[in-house]
Amino acid sequence: MKKITIQFEPEGRKVETNPDLNILEIAQDAGIGIRSECGGKAICGKCRIIIQDQRPVSKLTDAERRLLSEDEIFEGYRLACSTIAKGDLVVEIPEESRIRIRRMQITGMELPVKLDPLVKKFHVVLPKATLQDIRPDAERLLDSLESEYRITGLELNQKILSNLPDIIREKNWEVTVVVWNGKNLVALESGDTSNILYGFAVDIGTSKLVGYLVNLRNGETEEIVSVENPQISCGEDLMTRISYTLEGENNLKRLQRMVVGSINSLMKQACDNVGITTKNIYELTIVGNTAMHHFFLGIQPKYVSYSPYAPAVKSPLNVRASNLNLAVEPEVNVYVLPCVAGFVGADAVGDAIASGVCESEERSLLIDIGTNTEVFVGNSEDIIACSCASGPAFEGAHIKYGMKAVTGAIEKIKINSGNLEVSYETIDDEPPVGICGSGILDGVAELIRTGVINIRGRFTNMDNERLIQQNGKKEFVIAWGNETVTGKEITITQADIGEIQLSKGAIHTGVAITMRRRGYTKEDLGRVYIAGAFGYHIDPMSAKIIGMLPDIPTEKIKFVGNTAITGAKMCLTSRETREKAHTLSKKIRYLELAVDPDFQKEFVNSMYIPYKNMEEYPTVIKLLKKKSE
Amino acid sequence: MKKITIQFEPEGRKVETNPDLNILEIAQDAGIGIRSECGGKAICGKCRIIIQDQRPVSKLTDAERRLLSEDEIFEGYRLACSTIAKGDLVVEIPEESRIRIRRMQITGMELPVKLDPLVKKFHVVLPKATLQDIRPDAERLLDSLESEYRITGLELNQKILSNLPDIIREKNWEVTVVVWNGKNLVALESGDTSNILYGFAVDIGTSKLVGYLVNLRNGETEEIVSVENPQISCGEDLMTRISYTLEGENNLKRLQRMVVGSINSLMKQACDNVGITTKNIYELTIVGNTAMHHFFLGIQPKYVSYSPYAPAVKSPLNVRASNLNLAVEPEVNVYVLPCVAGFVGADAVGDAIASGVCESEERSLLIDIGTNTEVFVGNSEDIIACSCASGPAFEGAHIKYGMKAVTGAIEKIKINSGNLEVSYETIDDEPPVGICGSGILDGVAELIRTGVINIRGRFTNMDNERLIQQNGKKEFVIAWGNETVTGKEITITQADIGEIQLSKGAIHTGVAITMRRRGYTKEDLGRVYIAGAFGYHIDPMSAKIIGMLPDIPTEKIKFVGNTAITGAKMCLTSRETREKAHTLSKKIRYLELAVDPDFQKEFVNSMYIPYKNMEEYPTVIKLLKKKSE
Repeated sequence: MKKITIQFEPEGRKVETNPDLNILEIAQDAGIGIRSECGGKAICGKCRIIIQDQRPVSKLTDAERRLLSEDEIFEGYRLACSTIAKGDLVVEIPEESRIRIRRMQITGMELPVKLDPLVKKFHVVLPKATLQDIRPDAERLLDSLESEYRITGLELNQKILSNLPDIIREKNWEVTVVVWNGKNLVALESGDTSNILYGFAVDIGTSKLVGYLVNLRNGETEEIVSVENPQISCGEDLMTRISYTLEGENNLKRLQRMVVGSINSLMKQACDNVGITTKNIYELTIVGNTAMHHFFLGIQPKYVSYSPYAPAVKSPLNVRASNLNLAVEPEVNVYVLPCVAGFVGADAVGDAIASGVCESEERSLLIDIGTNTEVFVGNSEDIIACSCASGPAFEGAHIKYGMKAVTGAIEKIKINSGNLEVSYETIDDEPPVGICGSGILDGVAELIRTGVINIRGRFTNMDNERLIQQNGKKEFVIAWGNETVTGKEITITQADIGEIQLSKGAIHTGVAITMRRRGYTKEDLGRVYIAGAFGYHIDPMSAKIIGMLPDIPTEKIKFVGNTAITGAKMCLTSRETREKAHTLSKKIRYLELAVDPDFQKEFVNSMYIPYKNMEEYPTVIKLLKKKSE
Repeated sequence: MKKITIQFEPEGRKVETNPDLNILEIAQDAGIGIRSECGGKAICGKCRIIIQDQRPVSKLTDAERRLLSEDEIFEGYRLACSTIAKGDLVVEIPEESRIRIRRMQITGMELPVKLDPLVKKFHVVLPKATLQDIRPDAERLLDSLESEYRITGLELNQKILSNLPDIIREKNWEVTVVVWNGKNLVALESGDTSNILYGFAVDIGTSKLVGYLVNLRNGETEEIVSVENPQISCGEDLMTRISYTLEGENNLKRLQRMVVGSINSLMKQACDNVGITTKNIYELTIVGNTAMHHFFLGIQPKYVSYSPYAPAVKSPLNVRASNLNLAVEPEVNVYVLPCVAGFVGADAVGDAIASGVCESEERSLLIDIGTNTEVFVGNSEDIIACSCASGPAFEGAHIKYGMKAVTGAIEKIKINSGNLEVSYETIDDEPPVGICGSGILDGVAELIRTGVINIRGRFTNMDNERLIQQNGKKEFVIAWGNETVTGKEITITQADIGEIQLSKGAIHTGVAITMRRRGYTKEDLGRVYIAGAFGYHIDPMSAKIIGMLPDIPTEKIKFVGNTAITGAKMCLTSRETREKAHTLSKKIRYLELAVDPDFQKEFVNSMYIPYKNMEEYPTVIKLLKKKSE
């Protein structure tokens, strides 16, 4: 079939594709971010693009006439979801339709490992074939590898063999062999290329992908790249995406194509920056939560969303790149880290590895905060994990003025305990647009500290100009209308506080029950690791005040960042780490909170701010006392 | 891209294909035989087809106007190579354009083996997932396989995993698992399907393919199918086909597609006959000479045709069916038997296995006669193999009235030693069209026995009406014009005799030198195995008289038929046989005749009929004496 080429501006990126697809699909499959909230159903009108020469596209639809103004239509505006490409064309993505790059936590704690990648290169000069030495090419190569490097039992494969005769003769019988795990041929290169050996580690997050390009000759991360997860256009959270896969036969394949397209883009970008090509990437390692893991592998994810939430698989997997359409050599191995359970995925295993939480005798708590929050409690002897449905409030969802952690988001809040004057900081110091997760967390903590709300999270009868009424309900003004971009005030509502109570309550419940099942009190804890992008930006004192974290000394809290990706990277450079990951995934005991007998009661108690039994939070008692003095 | 459908008559077979290909290519890729001698270059005019409705095809070319008569063009005749399909259409292949089914030797000797296929089925009923037992689907399955069948260390693979959750739930947690070699998942079927387990063995011959559909539950061959090798249209012999691969970048891929298409057709045909589907074929085994082996695997075959004739690989290979586009489940294993050298291929290893020539202490000679003739000499202690360039004379090529062993070929000849009257037999008892290999061999043997030619192969001065002159050269009339289809006499010429001398001389040279290097005299031989389709039809006495075989008692000669395919079948049903094949391919010493110091002299001596030193052929001396008495 004839292919067509779509050029996306302003990047100038060219995408070759089949005709008769809509431009949103084409962009998503190529990993190019265009906003869409309705998932391509021509409802939200967010996927606006500009096409100057509209001859090679389908005609305007009624939905477009409704969602675009006459002026816009005159200027060439279209909706990407409603525009079918028929031939070569140029598409401009205006600023408002771009998925804004969020502040992303893309680095994390990383334990030192002994450099021992599974993929290695071996350079050999073969004796030429003669009538006196008629060994076949493959056996000649294997013999040289055995005599020079003591490699035996290498499995031959047909794809590598197909060009072997030409490659070994190309540079006068001098070749470099890429071997995986001492037994599989990954690639064959003419001449001596042994000084170039790269790997690529990927964290597939629900909302973002992060890639590390790692030089496997020295273990160094040479480039870090990241991009929004394009699957967002098929659902913000993983449950919506699982539902999406059930709506159409090809939807799972589509989610898979999107994430693979993004990984291919990330690899290309990272390689371009370093001055190599993707042919120099000889292994990939992948982490992600269980749903992302299943989407990436094209594995039916349906049952992860139904009780008893059984995933298809949790073992580590080695998959050939060609089976996944990754743009590297076909025999390159893709190592997918193991999962623990339906809601404790390979990303959590990455956290555990990179933080070392399971290796030390020190009793630790690890919390990876996200829409689902994973909790690990234990030490090298025994470790228990659970998953808490903490929801998307920390990502700004379900909060009246909530937003993601992008430019203009209020991220820090202080309230004067005397006059309730508010000081705040925004991302990039731009005028405020809304409040992101760390801001709302600060806000709620400050409201309780200053007595504006009580332990149940209700507004008290305090009187202040910042306490306003909207539709008969109290709200607390964080920023006045003259300070904000929209000209309207930004507030924290009673409902917002309720959302935060639900979120922090879920986390507290998970931590409390898991600690109890492991037999720990908070005094036993030597270290509390906070992982994940959100965790990195929160104020630990605020987190303690609202009761999201136990009341432990701040010096015991360690913010470890994106340990999912550093765990993946450690697996790329170290065979031993992979063995640890596998052992861990089997050893970690998964606790299903929903069936724990204490769950209901603990959850109710955890809804209090900080907690029903205040004695658990002496630091908070002290703060409140100080205020009342 | 839109697909089109071509219906080939009279079979009614429908082929779905891309438009804008010529009909010869479409037929070849689908394994449908249409004659072509020029390889699709619009020179030979043999690929005649009839298309009644010519609207969906390209216009008549100049070549077609030249090669077809006006009447034919009126009747809808076209040349398949010159007709481009644009839409759905019906193509009739007239009788004259069909590749005639040759008499094929498709069965062979087969040693009994212990039934132990590498692919096995295991039926399990899994405990259902509950909140108390939240093991992932894959681990649940592995646990059950371990506890019920003690299978451990099974490698999970992403393709099988992708549908695992649905399959295990489809029939209430009851599944049948297909496992290869105790470690790889081949397929997963819902319910209990353990009573259906088939394999398919294939011999890819230069001129024909033979397939055995084998029931792996009892080791029985349930169906034998065969077809001409469609690659014939790209060259009759393997050297021409290797040259063909060098003429165009995609030609190797094309040869691969042709043979894969034929195997897919054979599998479908065999399964239809037995009442199963190709999904029930869980493993394939493949033999073929080294060139066919390389073509099938898409491996660069170029260097097999240049000194020192190094193949790319000789080890046994296990390839996934999906990598070869075979129409079975993607993870089905394809076991390709090992080769010995560039001209002693996997088919010869099949011969050695099925005849047992390398297992017994008895000293044996095995000859697989073809365009290249493989010779094995030895016993269980040590075995030497060589390949002789015996050429295509035995297939009727380079012989004035030579033809393949199809209907109307003279296959047996007797000449009365008194009046030189000739009696002959033809295939299917039809009036003679020409002489096939076994006929020409009989003819030359009878000519020497009756003294019409001398030991140098020259016509003597005998006077008889059957000795005629053509262009000043003597020919011997086998059939008079009034007996033949064409109305012209069928003769054996001086040049024909020369061709047979070259062919049989090559074989004799190979046998003699290999026997010498192994330290055997003909008296040492306990058994002589004659393998291959041609060998099956020759008269052993004629073969001795012309000196193709050593002068050994006829009762020691065993015609074993197509042992290449039976060797492949034994590998399908027996793990031990595969190990033997591998050991053999390493153990057999390959003798490169071309560099043997005795080669030139031996070859000259072997051109005599039966041999320069007549004392080696006492039986022939006796016959000639009898004649002269």
